[in-house]
Amino acid sequence: MRSAIYPGSFDPITNGHLDIIRRAAETFDKVIVTVSHNPNKNPMFDLEERVELIKRAAVDIENIEVDCFSGLLIDYVKNKEVNVIIKGLRAVSDFEYEFQMALMNRKLNDNVETLFMMTNSQYSYLSSSLVKEVFKLGGSIEGLVPEIVIKEMKKKI
Amino acid sequence: MRSAIYPGSFDPITNGHLDIIRRAAETFDKVIVTVSHNPNKNPMFDLEERVELIKRAAVDIENIEVDCFSGLLIDYVKNKEVNVIIKGLRAVSDFEYEFQMALMNRKLNDNVETLFMMTNSQYSYLSSSLVKEVFKLGGSIEGLVPEIVIKEMKKKI
Amino acid sequence: MRSAIYPGSFDPITNGHLDIIRRAAETFDKVIVTVSHNPNKNPMFDLEERVELIKRAAVDIENIEVDCFSGLLIDYVKNKEVNVIIKGLRAVSDFEYEFQMALMNRKLNDNVETLFMMTNSQYSYLSSSLVKEVFKLGGSIEGLVPEIVIKEMKKKI
Amino acid sequence: MRSAIYPGSFDPITNGHLDIIRRAAETFDKVIVTVSHNPNKNPMFDLEERVELIKRAAVDIENIEVDCFSGLLIDYVKNKEVNVIIKGLRAVSDFEYEFQMALMNRKLNDNVETLFMMTNSQYSYLSSSLVKEVFKLGGSIEGLVPEIVIKEMKKKI
Amino acid sequence: MRSAIYPGSFDPITNGHLDIIRRAAETFDKVIVTVSHNPNKNPMFDLEERVELIKRAAVDIENIEVDCFSGLLIDYVKNKEVNVIIKGLRAVSDFEYEFQMALMNRKLNDNVETLFMMTNSQYSYLSSSLVKEVFKLGGSIEGLVPEIVIKEMKKKI
Amino acid sequence: MRSAIYPGSFDPITNGHLDIIRRAAETFDKVIVTVSHNPNKNPMFDLEERVELIKRAAVDIENIEVDCFSGLLIDYVKNKEVNVIIKGLRAVSDFEYEFQMALMNRKLNDNVETLFMMTNSQYSYLSSSLVKEVFKLGGSIEGLVPEIVIKEMKKKI
Repeated sequence: MRSAIYPGSFDPITNGHLDIIRRAAETFDKVIVTVSHNPNKNPMFDLEERVELIKRAAVDIENIEVDCFSGLLIDYVKNKEVNVIIKGLRAVSDFEYEFQMALMNRKLNDNVETLFMMTNSQYSYLSSSLVKEVFKLGGSIEGLVPEIVIKEMKKKI
Repeated sequence: MRSAIYPGSFDPITNGHLDIIRRAAETFDKVIVTVSHNPNKNPMFDLEERVELIKRAAVDIENIEVDCFSGLLIDYVKNKEVNVIIKGLRAVSDFEYEFQMALMNRKLNDNVETLFMMTNSQYSYLSSSLVKEVFKLGGSIEGLVPEIVIKEMKKKI
Repeated sequence: MRSAIYPGSFDPITNGHLDIIRRAAETFDKVIVTVSHNPNKNPMFDLEERVELIKRAAVDIENIEVDCFSGLLIDYVKNKEVNVIIKGLRAVSDFEYEFQMALMNRKLNDNVETLFMMTNSQYSYLSSSLVKEVFKLGGSIEGLVPEIVIKEMKKKI
Repeated sequence: MRSAIYPGSFDPITNGHLDIIRRAAETFDKVIVTVSHNPNKNPMFDLEERVELIKRAAVDIENIEVDCFSGLLIDYVKNKEVNVIIKGLRAVSDFEYEFQMALMNRKLNDNVETLFMMTNSQYSYLSSSLVKEVFKLGGSIEGLVPEIVIKEMKKKI
Repeated sequence: MRSAIYPGSFDPITNGHLDIIRRAAETFDKVIVTVSHNPNKNPMFDLEERVELIKRAAVDIENIEVDCFSGLLIDYVKNKEVNVIIKGLRAVSDFEYEFQMALMNRKLNDNVETLFMMTNSQYSYLSSSLVKEVFKLGGSIEGLVPEIVIKEMKKKI
Repeated sequence: MRSAIYPGSFDPITNGHLDIIRRAAETFDKVIVTVSHNPNKNPMFDLEERVELIKRAAVDIENIEVDCFSGLLIDYVKNKEVNVIIKGLRAVSDFEYEFQMALMNRKLNDNVETLFMMTNSQYSYLSSSLVKEVFKLGGSIEGLVPEIVIKEMKKKI
């Protein structure tokens, strides 16, 4: 069985993330979507909420598991006995940062491979932080995030 | 009449901004230069000061109006009944960020078009934040910002 | 009246070009779409055919004129008494080349301004040469170029 | 069983290609390395020779098949009943071109996914064409291509 | 005698920095490695510690001097009567930022030249901040920084 | 004595090249400007003419030598007993190509260092090929290349 791990902040999950999850789930037998705990950031949703939002948004995709982790991604991946990390790419700036992280992860554990998937081009401008910024300024985020996320974001205000 | 809106932080206006304003004013019948209110940033000049500095620096350009706004740019643009946003580009890194914002704005309102203009290459290295950094460290900012801005920056210390 | 010139090879016109033409025609009072004559290239369609294809594909856009030119773009623009050039941008690689050309054109005539417009993100991967390559290898180009272009490309084989 | 196709010109196979093949073979159950026939290029090795060189260079990797194809990659992939294409990335310039091709392939067949893998950073400067250029100018290509390739390149002169 | 100044935060010095110091020391008669004081950042090591770590890591390189400075780099360089600044480049994102700084420095003093050197490709993913992040999460930083740095980082916890 | 080699096609030398030569001559004790022989290209000026044009354009710079070479640059550099190669950078696209070449040269001979210098930003759009293209289409190249080059280009037609 070929498994892959798709890590991210997912604060909150966007339709771009969901697109990658769907594509990854068709490419691998099992995909573990995992929310990273970043103690320095001040998130809109806490870890449990983010996990819950992903579960509800991706409820129709059967071969996924939603989880969270703290510490080094590469340690988490080893514990899960998976050797593939999935990252979505939207643009050149993504690419450089992700490349750097992937090379560092390869240095830390050469048995784990990072595979990059392209986000659907209609979501190329989409990021969780931009969604939050638009939302806070009163703009519509319809079509950018799953319906359930809009509902929960409204509760946060 | 063809109008355009040129938004920015302008904290403070640089000679690169002034170059774009001048070029935009020759390309459109009217240009609204508008200062964005960003509650997260800690600016050197407040909104009113920034508006005033632009007015004084661009006093010889007749077909411009200087204004400020808070909230979503795309809402401001709609209220002004303008459908063109002008952004200056200096380098590749600018381009990616501005592209992302422009695509988001297009998603929010497809009737508004973002047009990119090139900054004069002699100002390709110039940004408000770099000007402030050089100034704070005691370097000369002659030629980088309008004379009136240098005078007002000296008062701030 | 604010006019703009949108130059290109258009061999053949794609739906990405058509998207830019449509947006430019809403932004300016008149848009001159002009096909450049490049003696070094071996085009699929000759100059007259390319002009004709643009006319037929954009038949519903009223405020455009379709033309062609040889020699320096900047001389053509001056003869037409227009001072705005429109270029579409898809990605970073476009940007660098177009920036270089625009700076050279500014050096040749500082009264002419190049404005960059973003192609719709759904066409971000689209180019005339890629369309021709796919077509020659037997792939479907439905949705990538106007219907009339598909018809004429089939005649070329 | 999860299979992937790794297409390329491989004129000739380099140690960078071999690194990607090895990593792909660990990530998927089966990898089909396939040499593309490009009628426009004037290759150093013909299709059969390139296939043979890959077979000999990768003789120790068991779960691969070496093949060649002409026509559209996406048609070849469908015939093979595989839905994953592997591409190696070295640098930003690679990324833009490969992104464009992958988006076009997704447009042609949305069931096929392109996954990008990073070349080992020690091969980040390596390309078949650069190897050939160095070789023709009398430079050493030891360590850049498999031994068997050096031997066959010497016979070509 | 041809001298050069290699400035940086060096919080802490990495093997990538050390590689540049070694190469610079072979290219120039004397190299001044200088640690910049940045009042806004919250460093892991203070100025004196960073100077000390560089001295100990580079103890075998004879023609270097290790120093620190506050204020404008260009003023420091003038005081030292040196007219060459060395900067290491790893990737495209480095390049844009460093280019901007170098152009600003040229504007401030046209007699000082910035020369860019390439970091060894095996360190292309390496940065002080990434090293600190990996270390804090419990990962191994063996091979990324000099031994003496690992020892001192362990004391900091 | 610290010497450096500045290689290029110089077909013809531009004011951007001359700017780099001048800066390099102030940074090193001696600079060898060397014209590369490329058998595949069809140059406007032959090797001897290009050498002659550089000599005349840079006649006031005392510590330079103008030369030409064929074969591998790295072999030429070794024969000259120099261990520094100078390359000018204008933009991101330059950077990637030059980086690749510099890494290959480092692989071929690790004792030779490539140093990158920034072209003056007013020449950031300038290349020999763009100059030739503008000239052939009848545009003015005043200010882009040395006077002597304009004179010789006019004779070529």
